[in-house]
Amino acid sequence: MVTDTTNQPFVRNAWYVAAWPEEIDEAPLARTIMNEPIVMFRDADGNVGAIEDRCCHRGAPLSHGTVVEKGLQCVYHGLVFDGDGKCVKIPGQKTIPDQANIQGYPLFEQHKIVWIWMGDPALADESMIVGYPWHDQTDKWPHRKECYSIKCNYMLMIDNLMDLTHLGYLHTKTIGGDPMIHVDADTTVDRTKTGVLLTRWMLDSNPPPTYQKGLGFKGKVDRWAEFEYFAPSTIVQWSGGLDVGKGARENREQDGFHLRLLHAVTPETETTCFYFWSTANGHRQDEPQATEDMYNEIVATFIEDIDILEAQQSRIDLNPDRPLVSIYSDGAMTYARRALREMIDGDDAGVGSIAE
Amino acid sequence: MVTDTTNQPFVRNAWYVAAWPEEIDEAPLARTIMNEPIVMFRDADGNVGAIEDRCCHRGAPLSHGTVVEKGLQCVYHGLVFDGDGKCVKIPGQKTIPDQANIQGYPLFEQHKIVWIWMGDPALADESMIVGYPWHDQTDKWPHRKECYSIKCNYMLMIDNLMDLTHLGYLHTKTIGGDPMIHVDADTTVDRTKTGVLLTRWMLDSNPPPTYQKGLGFKGKVDRWAEFEYFAPSTIVQWSGGLDVGKGARENREQDGFHLRLLHAVTPETETTCFYFWSTANGHRQDEPQATEDMYNEIVATFIEDIDILEAQQSRIDLNPDRPLVSIYSDGAMTYARRALREMIDGDDAGVGSIAE
Amino acid sequence: MVTDTTNQPFVRNAWYVAAWPEEIDEAPLARTIMNEPIVMFRDADGNVGAIEDRCCHRGAPLSHGTVVEKGLQCVYHGLVFDGDGKCVKIPGQKTIPDQANIQGYPLFEQHKIVWIWMGDPALADESMIVGYPWHDQTDKWPHRKECYSIKCNYMLMIDNLMDLTHLGYLHTKTIGGDPMIHVDADTTVDRTKTGVLLTRWMLDSNPPPTYQKGLGFKGKVDRWAEFEYFAPSTIVQWSGGLDVGKGARENREQDGFHLRLLHAVTPETETTCFYFWSTANGHRQDEPQATEDMYNEIVATFIEDIDILEAQQSRIDLNPDRPLVSIYSDGAMTYARRALREMIDGDDAGVGSIAE
Repeated sequence: MVTDTTNQPFVRNAWYVAAWPEEIDEAPLARTIMNEPIVMFRDADGNVGAIEDRCCHRGAPLSHGTVVEKGLQCVYHGLVFDGDGKCVKIPGQKTIPDQANIQGYPLFEQHKIVWIWMGDPALADESMIVGYPWHDQTDKWPHRKECYSIKCNYMLMIDNLMDLTHLGYLHTKTIGGDPMIHVDADTTVDRTKTGVLLTRWMLDSNPPPTYQKGLGFKGKVDRWAEFEYFAPSTIVQWSGGLDVGKGARENREQDGFHLRLLHAVTPETETTCFYFWSTANGHRQDEPQATEDMYNEIVATFIEDIDILEAQQSRIDLNPDRPLVSIYSDGAMTYARRALREMIDGDDAGVGSIAE
Repeated sequence: MVTDTTNQPFVRNAWYVAAWPEEIDEAPLARTIMNEPIVMFRDADGNVGAIEDRCCHRGAPLSHGTVVEKGLQCVYHGLVFDGDGKCVKIPGQKTIPDQANIQGYPLFEQHKIVWIWMGDPALADESMIVGYPWHDQTDKWPHRKECYSIKCNYMLMIDNLMDLTHLGYLHTKTIGGDPMIHVDADTTVDRTKTGVLLTRWMLDSNPPPTYQKGLGFKGKVDRWAEFEYFAPSTIVQWSGGLDVGKGARENREQDGFHLRLLHAVTPETETTCFYFWSTANGHRQDEPQATEDMYNEIVATFIEDIDILEAQQSRIDLNPDRPLVSIYSDGAMTYARRALREMIDGDDAGVGSIAE
Repeated sequence: MVTDTTNQPFVRNAWYVAAWPEEIDEAPLARTIMNEPIVMFRDADGNVGAIEDRCCHRGAPLSHGTVVEKGLQCVYHGLVFDGDGKCVKIPGQKTIPDQANIQGYPLFEQHKIVWIWMGDPALADESMIVGYPWHDQTDKWPHRKECYSIKCNYMLMIDNLMDLTHLGYLHTKTIGGDPMIHVDADTTVDRTKTGVLLTRWMLDSNPPPTYQKGLGFKGKVDRWAEFEYFAPSTIVQWSGGLDVGKGARENREQDGFHLRLLHAVTPETETTCFYFWSTANGHRQDEPQATEDMYNEIVATFIEDIDILEAQQSRIDLNPDRPLVSIYSDGAMTYARRALREMIDGDDAGVGSIAE
C-alpha cells in the first residue's frame, strides 16, 4: 500500500490556534497563516482582533503600527483599522470609501487559547472549537505553553504525534526505552465523528524514567497513552500510569501520574508550520518544579522530532509527488490522514468542517 | 481611485546616478544596475568608464581584475578592455575579433556626481542631466554624501520623498512633530516639463527641533519645503526657514536655516535599489560639526524610512498586481507616478527622455 | 569561434569520485551527487555501500540513522537497508514488500579512492576506473588528500585545470611568475581514447620558487607539466623538473623535483561540485614536512581558483546560454570539452562510457 505523501492542501473552513493569549499584549503580533500575513492585536477593551497585515493604502504591514483607541494605526500614514478590518480613519480625509476596508478573520479566545477561522466567516461556528478545559483548572492542572516554528508541512507533525512506534528509535536518548514495547503495545484506533482516537495500554509494565522522576512508583504500573486527533490539526493527549491493582482500565481518574498535552499545528506555508503545545501535569500540582521538569523533558524530545521532521521535509521537497510505502504500524496515522482527506473534500465542497 | 501599484518597469533612456566619484579609486567598483552587472573604473588619465562586468572570454567578472595602462585587465586570462568596452589586448594573440568587445555605458561626471545612461547611447544627451551646482560651492554649501542599498522597487522611495504626510506618523521619534501640521500644510503641486514640483509653506510656525539645533531661532518662523522631482528618479530638495517678517515667500535667498538635499534612486533590480543622497547646509557653513549634525539627524530619519519601505516591498512581493487605495494626501506622489508613466511610454516608443 | 558555454549536462554512465575512504567511518556520510541525495556507509565487514538517502517509509534521510549489523537503520521508525538498497527489516512486520527497496549505487574502492557509478548498473565496469597506483606507494609518493565544495558547474573546474595560461594572471601572488612563460610554453595537446593529454615543456628555464623550496636547484632546469584528462571528470597530473643535461625529455623517471596530483570533480548540482584532489611528492619522501609544504602551496593557489570560478558561475547564471569567445590559448580546454561532448552523446545513446 502506498500512502498519501504530498504536502496536504489547507482546510480553510476550520479553527486553528493562532496564538497564546499572552503573546498579544500592547504590541501587535504578526503571524503568517496559510500564506496570509495576519496581524493580531488587543484593543482598549481587551478584545482581540485579527486582520490582514497590509494597509490598503500603500501596502505597509500594519504590524509595524501601534494600537490606538479605535484600533490599529498604520505607522506609515496613520490610517486606522478596527478588529474586523474596517477602516475607521484616514488622516486628512472625511469620507472613508468601502474599498479601504481590509480583511478581518474571526478570532475566538477560549480556555486560554486564541483560535482563528481561516474560511468563510459565515461558517465560523465557535461550538466546533476543540475544548481544553484543563487550562482553566490551574490548581489541578498547572501547565506551561510554547510555540515552535517548524520547517515542515503541518501534517508531518500530526503524523508524528499519531505514531508512537518512533519513540523507540528517534527518542532512545530521551523517552524511548525498548523499541518493541512501543511496537507491541495494546493499541486501538477508532474513527470518531471529528477525527481519530488512538489508545495504547501497557499493563503491568515498568514505569519509564519520566514517570519515576515525576511521581516515584514502588512497583509496576498500568500505563496508558491516549491521543485524540480532531481534524485538521489539533490533538489532545492524556498519558499516565497507576499502580497495578488500582483498576486503571476501569477508572483512570485516580491519583497517579497524569499528563495532559494540547498539540495544535497551524500551517504557515505549505512547508512550514507553527506548533503550539501545552503540557499540564496532574500530579504534584503544588510544586512548580514538577511542571518545569516535565516541560524540560518534553522539550528535549520535541527537539529530536523537529530535527527529523525538517530533514524529512527537505527530502519531500525534492519530489513532493513521489510515493511513500506504508507499514503495519502506520495505522493511526493512516486513519488521521483519511479523516483529513474527508475534511479537505468537504472544504472543497464548501460544506464546512466535519467537526460538530 | 485605485493607484499604480506594481513594481515599475525601468526607464532605460535616462540618466541615473551610478556612483559618487570618490567610490571609484584605484580599485574597480562593481554595481548592478537594472539587473546588469557593471564595473566602473578610472583610467590613468582620471577618466571614468563603465563596462559590463563580464569578460567575453570565460565570463569572469572584470571587477576582480586590475586597472592597467590601457584599461581594465581580467584577472583570469589577462584580456584588457578600455572604458568603452573595446577589447584592446588578448594575451598570446595578435588580432582581436570584434566579438571580443563588450558593452560600454555612457558615463558622465558633473557636480561631483557620476551619472550613467542605461539606454541607447545615441540618445545620451548630457544636457539632460539634473544640475546640482551646490556641490561645487563647498564654502557656501558644505555637504556630506551617502549611498544606501534598499530592498524595494525604486519608486517606493520616490513615493516616500514626494509625500510629506508620513512625517507625522513614521518619524514621530525624529523629525515628525504634530501629524496635522504636515497633513494641513499649505501645499502646491505642479507638473513641470521634467516632472513635478511640490512646495509646502508653514508660515508663522514654531521652528522644529532640527531648525532650532541647526541655527537657533528666537521666535516663530516662515518655513518651506520644496521637492522637485525629475523623472524617473532624481529629487532636488530645498528646505528652510526665516524669521517671520523677513518676507520669506518673496525672497528665500536670505540668511536663515537652509538645507539642500539631492535624492537619486537607481534601480538595482525590480525590487532593490541604490539610494544616493547628499545633504548640504546653507547655515553655519564654517562649522564642520553643523554639517555632521545635520547628516546624523537625517540618517536617523532615513533608517525609519528604509525599515518601512522594505516591509512594504515584502507585502507587495506577495502579489504585485493587487490594487492599493489612494487617499487625498497622495497628490504629489500621484503626479510623480503620472510623470513616470509618460516617461515609460516614451521609453517604450524609443523617443528618449521627457527631460530636456 | 564561439565555445560551449552552458552548464554541461551530467554524464551518468561514468565513474566519479564519491568520497575518500577515510570519510566513511562509523557514521554514515551524506553527499548529494547529480542532484540525488546519497548516503554512504561501511558495514561490519568493512564494505562500503551507497544508497539513496531517503527512507521508503516516510522519506526521512537515512544519513540521520545508524549503522547496525545488517545495514543502515532509519532513525525514525527503524527500517534497515543493506548496501544495495534492499530493505532487510521493518519493525513490527514479518514480510517485506519489494517496493520497500530503495536505490543502490555501485561503489568501488580502489587506490584509496571511493568511486561511484551514477548510471545503469549493468554498464558499471570497474576496469574503466581511472588508475592512480601512486596512492598505494606511500613510501615513494607520500600524499595528502582534500575535498572542496565549489559553487560552479564541474566543467569550469576542468576548464581551469586544462588551461595553464591563467597561471600568469590569476596566480601572480602564488605560483604564477611571468605570464608570457605560460603563454609561450612548448605545449602539445593530443586526443586520447579516453580524453585529452596536455603536455608542456619549459626547457633550460629558471626553477620556480616552488621547485626551489621543494628540492633546491643550483642551475637551470628542464621542466614539464603533464595533464591527462579522462572524460568526464578526472585529471591526472605529473609535474616536475630535472637539472639541465640529465635528458629529461627522454627519461623523466630520474631523481629530481616530482609532483603528482589527482583532480576529480564530481557534480553535486548543475551549478555546484565537489573537487577531490590529492597531492603526492616524489622528492624528499622521508620528510613529512615536504608533503605538508607542497599541500599548503597548492591550497593557496586553489583558493584563488575557487574565488574566480564561483564569480564566473555567478555571471553564467545570469544567462547560461549567452555565448563566450574563444581565444588561441584555449586549445586543451576546447579538446576536453569536445571529448566530453562525445561522451554526453554516447550517454544519451546509452552506449556507456568512451573510457575503455
